[in-house]
Amino acid sequence: MEKKSGTPQEIAYDEIKDFFDSAPPLRDGNTVCKKLHEFLETNSSSTGNHINNYRVVCVTSGGTTVPLEQRCVRFIDNFSSGHRGATSTEYFLKAGYSVIFLYRRESYQPYCTSLPDNPLLECFEMTDESFVQVHPSHSDAVKKAISNHQAAVKGGHLLKLPFCTIFEYLQILQLIATSMKNLGPYAMYYLAAAVSDFYVPWESMAMHKIQSASGPLDMRLAQVPKMLPVLRNDWAPMAFFISFKLETDRDILLKKADMALKKYKMHVVVANELLTRKEEVTVVTPTGNISVRRDKTKGVTDVEGPLIKLLVEKHSAHIEDSIKCS
Amino acid sequence: MEKKSGTPQEIAYDEIKDFFDSAPPLRDGNTVCKKLHEFLETNSSSTGNHINNYRVVCVTSGGTTVPLEQRCVRFIDNFSSGHRGATSTEYFLKAGYSVIFLYRRESYQPYCTSLPDNPLLECFEMTDESFVQVHPSHSDAVKKAISNHQAAVKGGHLLKLPFCTIFEYLQILQLIATSMKNLGPYAMYYLAAAVSDFYVPWESMAMHKIQSASGPLDMRLAQVPKMLPVLRNDWAPMAFFISFKLETDRDILLKKADMALKKYKMHVVVANELLTRKEEVTVVTPTGNISVRRDKTKGVTDVEGPLIKLLVEKHSAHIEDSIKCS
Repeated sequence: MEKKSGTPQEIAYDEIKDFFDSAPPLRDGNTVCKKLHEFLETNSSSTGNHINNYRVVCVTSGGTTVPLEQRCVRFIDNFSSGHRGATSTEYFLKAGYSVIFLYRRESYQPYCTSLPDNPLLECFEMTDESFVQVHPSHSDAVKKAISNHQAAVKGGHLLKLPFCTIFEYLQILQLIATSMKNLGPYAMYYLAAAVSDFYVPWESMAMHKIQSASGPLDMRLAQVPKMLPVLRNDWAPMAFFISFKLETDRDILLKKADMALKKYKMHVVVANELLTRKEEVTVVTPTGNISVRRDKTKGVTDVEGPLIKLLVEKHSAHIEDSIKCS
Repeated sequence: MEKKSGTPQEIAYDEIKDFFDSAPPLRDGNTVCKKLHEFLETNSSSTGNHINNYRVVCVTSGGTTVPLEQRCVRFIDNFSSGHRGATSTEYFLKAGYSVIFLYRRESYQPYCTSLPDNPLLECFEMTDESFVQVHPSHSDAVKKAISNHQAAVKGGHLLKLPFCTIFEYLQILQLIATSMKNLGPYAMYYLAAAVSDFYVPWESMAMHKIQSASGPLDMRLAQVPKMLPVLRNDWAPMAFFISFKLETDRDILLKKADMALKKYKMHVVVANELLTRKEEVTVVTPTGNISVRRDKTKGVTDVEGPLIKLLVEKHSAHIEDSIKCS
C-alpha cells in the first residue's frame, strides 16, 4: 500500500481513495459547495475583517448509517441523539463562533433539545377561532427555540448541512474542509458525530433486498478506513481538532482516548462514558486530563457549558501559538 | 419442537416463547395496558353500543430496530418512513374507525406527512412583538395537522403507542391483541410496519460496545420467529388481517405476497414495489388481485385513499360473514 512519507501515522490513502471512488455520488454536492462558499463569504465580509480573523467551528453531530443494500431497505445505525452536538452549537454561537453544523437528519437541532419529540403536535393547539397557539406550558421553550434559531441562521452564523449515510458524512466533511482551509488556525473541528467503524463496500452490496428465506444471516463488514489522519494532516493541517470517544467500559475509555490523542495528533479528545456522559466528561489533552462536570448548583445547566468554555480558551492558545510560529 | 395441532401452518411456539422470555422487559408495560383499556372503554361507551358494534383498527407503522449491543450503541434498522401507516390512519379515522397507531418513534405522524422535516423551525417565526406565528406558506398544512390531530386524540378515536426495537414492537402488539380480543370480527390489523427478519438474541448480545480493533466484523443474525401465525390464530382469530410485502424485485414480490396470503391466512396482502409504491399497490386476496392506483386527476391525492376504501368494504363483508357463521 502506498504511504505518504513525513506524516506521523500511516494514512491508508489507497483505502480512502477506494472508499470515495466506490461511494454513491453525493446528491446536491454543488448546492452544498455553494452554501459553504456563501456562508464563509458572509461571515468574513460582515465583520469587515480579513478572513483569518474570525473563528469557524465545524460541529458534527448524530450517528451515521451504513446501508446493507443498494436500494436501501436495511441499514446499520450508530446510536447518537445528537444532543451533545446540538447543545455545543448553542454555546459556540454564544461565544461568537460561526458554526457549520453537519448533522444526521432527524437528530437534535440547536435550541430544541428540551422540546418534546414532536413539538408541532405536542406544543401547539388550535383556538376556537382557528388560530394556532402555543400551549402555555411550552411557551418559553418554543419561543427560545424559534427566536435563537432564527437569529443564528438569519445572522449568517449557523449553516446546517444534513447527512444520513457514512458516505454522505465523509463526502460533505471533505467539502467543508476544502472550504475552510484558508481559515488556518481559526478553524475548529468538533467531531461529535458517532461515525460507523464498519461498512459494506457499495460494490459488494446486495442490489435487491436481502431475502430471509431460511436460516441465519451471516454478514461480513469491512472497516471504514480512518479518515481522521487525512483530515488532520492533509485537509486541515492548521486547524484545532477535538474528537470524541464513547465507550460503555470506563477502563477501555481512557486508554482509547489517550491513544487517539497521540495517534491522530488531536488537540483534545473528549472521553464520554455512556451512562454518565451528560453529567461529566474527561477532557484529554497532551498536557493532562481535566474532568468537566455539569454545575448542578446553577439550576438546569449542562456539561457543554463549561466544556465549550474550556475549549474556546484552548483554541485561543492554539491560535496564538500558530501566529507566533508563522 | 412442540407444535400445536389443528393450525393450518406450523407455529414455532418454542421459538416464540424463547424470544419473549429472553427479551428485555417492556418499559411502561402497565401504562400501555391502562391506555389501551381506557381507549377501548371510551370508544365503546361513547357510542353507547355493545363493544362489538364499533370498528377498531391497529395500524403498525415504521421500521423496527435490532440492537447489536445490550447497552445499545449500534443497531440494524429497517427503512420505513411510516408514510403509508400515517396516511392510512387518516383515512381510517375519516371512515369512522378508531385507530391504535403503533408507530416507530420519529416516523411520520397522521396529518403531518406533507410538512417539512422539522416543522417547528421551518414553519414558524417570531414576530417583532415576540409572538410565535406560522409562515403563510405553511399555514394551511400546519392548521390541518394540529386541528385534525387534536380532534382525533381528544375525541378518543386515536391512540398512539411508540416503539423502537423489534422487542418493544412485538411486546406491545401482543398487549394490543389481548385488549382487542373481545372485538371479534370488528377488529382489523393493518400491519404496515417493516419488521426485522433477523435479530441478535438478547442473551448472546455483546454487553459492551463492539470493539473495532482490527479486521472485518463477522456477524451472525438469527431469524426472528414468525409471529404472524400466532397473532392470526391465537391472539386474534376473528379479526380481519392485512399484511404488507415490500420488495425491490417485482417478480419476487407477487410470488411472496401470494405465499403470505396462503401461509398466514391473511385476508389481504398489499404488495408494494419499492420504487412505485406511492403510485400503485396490488391488493392480493384469495379471490384475485386488484391493482389500486393513485388518482392523479383529482389533484394531490394518494394511493391510500382508494386502498382504505376497498379495505373497509372487504372488512364489512368479513363482519357480515362472521355474523352469519356464528
